[in-house]
Amino acid sequence: MIFRLFALILLAGPALAQNVVRYTTTNDNVKYVFATAEPVARLKPGDILDTNTLDCFGNGLKKPGDTLSMAKGDNPLAGPFYVEGAAPGDTLTVKILDLQVDGDMGIGAFSPGFGAINGSHYTPVLEPPLKERVWFYHINHAANTATFKALDSDFSVKIPVHPFFGCIGVAPAEGEARSSLVPAEFGGNMDSPEASVGNTVYFPVNVKGGLLYLGDGHAAMGDGEIAGSAVEVPLKVRVQLGVIKGRKISWPQFENEDAIMTVGAYRPLEDAVRIGYTELVAWIHRDYGLSDLDAYELLSKVGRIHMNEMVDPNYVVVTSVEKKYLPPKKKP
Amino acid sequence: MIFRLFALILLAGPALAQNVVRYTTTNDNVKYVFATAEPVARLKPGDILDTNTLDCFGNGLKKPGDTLSMAKGDNPLAGPFYVEGAAPGDTLTVKILDLQVDGDMGIGAFSPGFGAINGSHYTPVLEPPLKERVWFYHINHAANTATFKALDSDFSVKIPVHPFFGCIGVAPAEGEARSSLVPAEFGGNMDSPEASVGNTVYFPVNVKGGLLYLGDGHAAMGDGEIAGSAVEVPLKVRVQLGVIKGRKISWPQFENEDAIMTVGAYRPLEDAVRIGYTELVAWIHRDYGLSDLDAYELLSKVGRIHMNEMVDPNYVVVTSVEKKYLPPKKKP
Amino acid sequence: MIFRLFALILLAGPALAQNVVRYTTTNDNVKYVFATAEPVARLKPGDILDTNTLDCFGNGLKKPGDTLSMAKGDNPLAGPFYVEGAAPGDTLTVKILDLQVDGDMGIGAFSPGFGAINGSHYTPVLEPPLKERVWFYHINHAANTATFKALDSDFSVKIPVHPFFGCIGVAPAEGEARSSLVPAEFGGNMDSPEASVGNTVYFPVNVKGGLLYLGDGHAAMGDGEIAGSAVEVPLKVRVQLGVIKGRKISWPQFENEDAIMTVGAYRPLEDAVRIGYTELVAWIHRDYGLSDLDAYELLSKVGRIHMNEMVDPNYVVVTSVEKKYLPPKKKP
Amino acid sequence: MIFRLFALILLAGPALAQNVVRYTTTNDNVKYVFATAEPVARLKPGDILDTNTLDCFGNGLKKPGDTLSMAKGDNPLAGPFYVEGAAPGDTLTVKILDLQVDGDMGIGAFSPGFGAINGSHYTPVLEPPLKERVWFYHINHAANTATFKALDSDFSVKIPVHPFFGCIGVAPAEGEARSSLVPAEFGGNMDSPEASVGNTVYFPVNVKGGLLYLGDGHAAMGDGEIAGSAVEVPLKVRVQLGVIKGRKISWPQFENEDAIMTVGAYRPLEDAVRIGYTELVAWIHRDYGLSDLDAYELLSKVGRIHMNEMVDPNYVVVTSVEKKYLPPKKKP
Repeated sequence: MIFRLFALILLAGPALAQNVVRYTTTNDNVKYVFATAEPVARLKPGDILDTNTLDCFGNGLKKPGDTLSMAKGDNPLAGPFYVEGAAPGDTLTVKILDLQVDGDMGIGAFSPGFGAINGSHYTPVLEPPLKERVWFYHINHAANTATFKALDSDFSVKIPVHPFFGCIGVAPAEGEARSSLVPAEFGGNMDSPEASVGNTVYFPVNVKGGLLYLGDGHAAMGDGEIAGSAVEVPLKVRVQLGVIKGRKISWPQFENEDAIMTVGAYRPLEDAVRIGYTELVAWIHRDYGLSDLDAYELLSKVGRIHMNEMVDPNYVVVTSVEKKYLPPKKKP
Repeated sequence: MIFRLFALILLAGPALAQNVVRYTTTNDNVKYVFATAEPVARLKPGDILDTNTLDCFGNGLKKPGDTLSMAKGDNPLAGPFYVEGAAPGDTLTVKILDLQVDGDMGIGAFSPGFGAINGSHYTPVLEPPLKERVWFYHINHAANTATFKALDSDFSVKIPVHPFFGCIGVAPAEGEARSSLVPAEFGGNMDSPEASVGNTVYFPVNVKGGLLYLGDGHAAMGDGEIAGSAVEVPLKVRVQLGVIKGRKISWPQFENEDAIMTVGAYRPLEDAVRIGYTELVAWIHRDYGLSDLDAYELLSKVGRIHMNEMVDPNYVVVTSVEKKYLPPKKKP
Repeated sequence: MIFRLFALILLAGPALAQNVVRYTTTNDNVKYVFATAEPVARLKPGDILDTNTLDCFGNGLKKPGDTLSMAKGDNPLAGPFYVEGAAPGDTLTVKILDLQVDGDMGIGAFSPGFGAINGSHYTPVLEPPLKERVWFYHINHAANTATFKALDSDFSVKIPVHPFFGCIGVAPAEGEARSSLVPAEFGGNMDSPEASVGNTVYFPVNVKGGLLYLGDGHAAMGDGEIAGSAVEVPLKVRVQLGVIKGRKISWPQFENEDAIMTVGAYRPLEDAVRIGYTELVAWIHRDYGLSDLDAYELLSKVGRIHMNEMVDPNYVVVTSVEKKYLPPKKKP
Repeated sequence: MIFRLFALILLAGPALAQNVVRYTTTNDNVKYVFATAEPVARLKPGDILDTNTLDCFGNGLKKPGDTLSMAKGDNPLAGPFYVEGAAPGDTLTVKILDLQVDGDMGIGAFSPGFGAINGSHYTPVLEPPLKERVWFYHINHAANTATFKALDSDFSVKIPVHPFFGCIGVAPAEGEARSSLVPAEFGGNMDSPEASVGNTVYFPVNVKGGLLYLGDGHAAMGDGEIAGSAVEVPLKVRVQLGVIKGRKISWPQFENEDAIMTVGAYRPLEDAVRIGYTELVAWIHRDYGLSDLDAYELLSKVGRIHMNEMVDPNYVVVTSVEKKYLPPKKKP
């Protein structure tokens, strides 16, 4: 199910003929671990990938009354996508060009044992668990909204739609295969709203080809994703892949015209913040030339922490600084 | 050093004669604990307090070359201010009307053993500590900026000024006296940028009169205040005090026209988030009528977490939701 | 209610006439904060204190059927006891000579919102809380046992009695007054089984006289005190107080003939362990002469962690090493 | 390199002919992930496995002066060993019959970025890292001791030898492959001194055959393994494998004649304790019949927490209770 075609894409600067690789994701070809596996498609740096992702339930829930037992799997992943020339020690780049909710429905769910302010698998309590609940959201494409409808009253309200990947990551190092529920050094289930149009994501390349996976589309999410779900949706996806040869990073990063952003993913949450900010100090030092202590001080005044999720096996924050506060980038 | 006068204050609606209480804070009358103590001034609900606060060093550092040993104390506090009629079980309200940097200088400092990504008193490591550094910031009142100047290079950059109280809180319950370095149920060293003009802060009243303390002005601060300081400044202060009789809260809260906000203060950071979000669910349930589970789901889609600081003995987050996502407020 | 008398006490070496100070603790003279307060008795270094403590409920629960609402306060404290000559920068020593359960009954209780594996004040969850339960234990002095009787079946079992202070500590530094529910640098509600006969406890002296407080007797406790209580008992107490002039410590310590032990008290639990072990490395380095790295390595092979409690506002561990693994103590 | 033979083994009760499977582990056949992989040997329930493990450095360091760069890998694993009849939903049992240090040398090492009280990969700090150090220990088989020799002084001391598996675990669920540095639900790098002679270890069976892995022998270890290593040794190993059909567990467990023990593995450390103790409450309820609340109360009086390690990506505790405090085990 791979189609290759050429398309004219407008990039900054002159229009270029870009190679576009199209791949259709279905429940028959999804994966459930970030791992070294046979690629479903191979792209060259600069190529564009047109694909789609299923929602975190494998599109198994269709209408009010459906239950979580109808999910066809947790966080099915599109991929892996192989990028020619990517080798361990390089950085894989994923520029997110377009994300559209695929359909007009999103799902929110509370699942017993999962959530930030209830007893959970890794923070268990003796109280009897709360019961499963499922909320369905209508997506209005014209208005770019999703509608929350209360289950216990007749209240409803429209929420702006901001589509992003809950899962985006690469094959881990050291031969590991990691569940699509887990975020870590390889990316994964980061639930980062920063994984959205306009941003480029950087990943460490751990194996030849990098092996990108995508999934778990979100149409809207609060900080922390505290009840365990966003507005869960399938996505139509357009991303451009690339490689930065010889640039070695330890954790995922984001960048856009305005800001550089690092990812910290671990527990307790303060360790996630420590990872994010030490990575950011190192990035500022390496590329923008401030001393570590000057960078530390500056971040203490203008740094930003975005807590992405506090429900997955590791917690995720994005720490960032706007480029306007940094010296000019050093010549490579 | 208490001056009482009447002034005409424009409030929403008709102009009213407001009582204004003026109090001058100096190193001779500051306090260093949030505690039950002799009030320095007594106000009636609705009265306005005009006062000033010293910076976190007791205004002891004056110019480049000055060191932390010249600080006259850590986080000296103005107060306590007694509000007539406030009794345990009530809520004290502090509407922040005006905050101005008092002077044209701010200070940033790295102090060994204090900070989010270095060895510290409560997260000690065996590595030899980093050395003390002090940065001085020029405050430009016309441009509303503070200027960061690197110590290890000649880089400088202007930062927008957003003045707020690092310390704001009341006498604790149960006869405790708590250091002005600590944030907890009584507020205290919350380092919340939300403690700024336009917001009202709510505190539990633990003792008669509530006993408000103010201090530790900040002109700008990054999320986490990670190197241990903001742009530390003295402040000129105008706040309006009030009491909500019979409303009992457990942790500080903020409110403005657009949002309701709760404070979680503890370690690890996930416990601070748990406190903030359970308090927010309870607030939404009580005042806006959603069921707990509907509120939980809604916050999972539109809730916000602002990590204030991760350097004090307890970490602080503000969790919030915009009112536009909530049902109409219930009639009391 | 202070009685002074002389008694012959056998110490190691020749018999000496020891001064014994007797003080009777009642609900009328207990305190609820560790703070600087008027001493109830003054002792000279070397003096023996004969006193008693109430149980953590102020002896308010008497028999099966009694409920927690009958408690006369939480963790009432005997004291403060002033030790002549103790000054900030010194170390207060408390040698525990004898502890006896005062009466033949102990109490265990589950209180909603308190406990290690249920929703609690600082780790709140949305599940409805479990309900209050109270267990009564018969103390058999001859057999030195306490009897657990299940509430939901007819099972019972005898538990060995090991009396210790749940609360032992001194006035905090910097003018703080801290709840008797909290353990911290000043000791306090450490719930350390190490606070028992045969051990000497060391505290930093923060104010003149040190100001020792005692309370919250435990007849038996599991690691973590997870349901929120030990076998709670009043105690008959005999301790010997002393001062080590010029020895400055930051956290409480224990010592006996066989081991040196440090206390770490904070959250998350790993920070408590970090505090305990860095303090232990420093102690070994200072008094026994190993380099920091050699001490670190040695503790990685023979160090011990005793998790005392994981229910109070701060968690407490005792980290220790047997003296047989250390070089001879350096001459002072 | 698989040898099968029959041997007479004395078990409790009459002597039985036991099948013994012998397998020789070398750097050529070790694995570095716990994963579903081709078994190196197949055993029937009740069979005995005679094998050996390499030390955590692949036996790469031989003598004083050797450095960590000479390690042939981190935590090489023997296995996987397939047990006939084990299927998902069952419990795999590993009775540890004999462990001997293989050779007369053990190694301790400090590796920058790894350790409990220094900056580390998941708790990074800005201070420059401490430098690598390696300690060699002589193993005296007759005296059953390992000798610590200080690097920075001439102090040395003998430590009792207690051999156990640092790594013991099975193939994870859901197709994961997990690094041999990580402990989790499947066991793995638990660094539990309880994985020693006299104890039986229980694992959830996640894939057909269970697929047991062994490695990372320790001759002695302090609580927390704080500097990042135990006395690291190769082992000669004798274990007996078995299956409990239809018994489903979520986390590893230990058992011997005197106690039942559960494993909690996660961060922060309090979550590890919560996992261990909730699992223990559930075990007591299921097999010994106490209500959850009675079990909770009883553990609050007699439960034990053994903090195994606080250096690996997840922290590990063993929580336990002596059987003498429990009702008679229920008939299955």
